[in-house]
Amino acid sequence: MKDQTIICSQSKIAGCDFALYPMTDQFVHVIMKALEEVDTSKVWVKTTDVGTCVRGKIVHVFDVTKALFLHAAQTGHHVVFSGTYSIGCPGDSAGDVFLAEDDIRLNEAQSSKIQQNIAGKFSLYPLGGGDYMDMIYSQIEAMKQEGIHVSSIHYATRLDGEGKDVFNGLEQVFTNMEKSDSSHTVMTVTISANSPSKKDVDNNE
Amino acid sequence: MKDQTIICSQSKIAGCDFALYPMTDQFVHVIMKALEEVDTSKVWVKTTDVGTCVRGKIVHVFDVTKALFLHAAQTGHHVVFSGTYSIGCPGDSAGDVFLAEDDIRLNEAQSSKIQQNIAGKFSLYPLGGGDYMDMIYSQIEAMKQEGIHVSSIHYATRLDGEGKDVFNGLEQVFTNMEKSDSSHTVMTVTISANSPSKKDVDNNE
Ligand SMILES: [Ca+2]
Repeated sequence: MKDQTIICSQSKIAGCDFALYPMTDQFVHVIMKALEEVDTSKVWVKTTDVGTCVRGKIVHVFDVTKALFLHAAQTGHHVVFSGTYSIGCPGDSAGDVFLAEDDIRLNEAQSSKIQQNIAGKFSLYPLGGGDYMDMIYSQIEAMKQEGIHVSSIHYATRLDGEGKDVFNGLEQVFTNMEKSDSSHTVMTVTISANSPSKKDVDNNE
Repeated sequence: MKDQTIICSQSKIAGCDFALYPMTDQFVHVIMKALEEVDTSKVWVKTTDVGTCVRGKIVHVFDVTKALFLHAAQTGHHVVFSGTYSIGCPGDSAGDVFLAEDDIRLNEAQSSKIQQNIAGKFSLYPLGGGDYMDMIYSQIEAMKQEGIHVSSIHYATRLDGEGKDVFNGLEQVFTNMEKSDSSHTVMTVTISANSPSKKDVDNNE
């Protein structure tokens, strides 16, 4: 067996290992349609039966994952995005060629048009050390300024608001982590749209 | 806002923040039915619109999550379990009273009867240091002896086999991490049943 996730290189390719879960009999159609509508040409992509992995520059990894979620959610079905964003690991080079892409986002024009209220949560795991506490708190303050409701839940931070704003906020947190001294950052994210369950937002911040 | 996930205490309560995703119009029914059939009386439980958190002794956290997944998968629908197991963090005490429970698993008799082939993956994040590499490799060897197919994928280790064996193997890995010197361990797990996608197992180990 090859190395597990534990041995880290200094490669600064970002990645997201994720899946979209449309809670409907038409789940295959919802996923295929979203994939059709999103331009993934600036990221390395591999899809298997346990999820999809995209790799490339941070901007494009977020551009693609945000767009896929928003397009799927737009169907009106209850859809959940669950993903792990990672940078600094593992030590292989698959997709490194995509680091040469420019920073122009291919899906931003479409994504920015989609209004979609979401409930989400994220956890940040700075595996490579670094000074990040102040950064996280200031980033959470910035999210609040964008109208995102932020609250603390077990093992995670909960986010409620406009889907595109939430993804943008998460991208900022992740980008700032990469700029900090952490050599390996992992961020787990769950974003839910159109849930029939009632919101459970704790207003005690 | 309260502390994020970063500040760790020495509390040895385990937890799993997870969700079941049944890809069917009957998703609410599938989840409710599984919850009905599983005895959660030895764990602290909180369910919101972004998932469920169970906390308690490691044995019961795994007993309950394994049973919920297997009961949901048994419906034949495409069902995914996505969860983050954690021990050693955060610093609050909710559910600590459940650490006084004995080690008798309430759902094992039922779970052990359920045959369910799965495809899954996991990643281990030892946030609190410790000597764990040999432990992980020996545990992966033990999983292979149980007939689980283990392969390396981006950011994770893929597992294919009998659902209950996979959960048992993951519980062993997690339990051994807790016994190692790591003061805070996080393990992300995705387990998929009845996927219409073809298997994508790399036989080059
Ligand atoms: Ca997940």
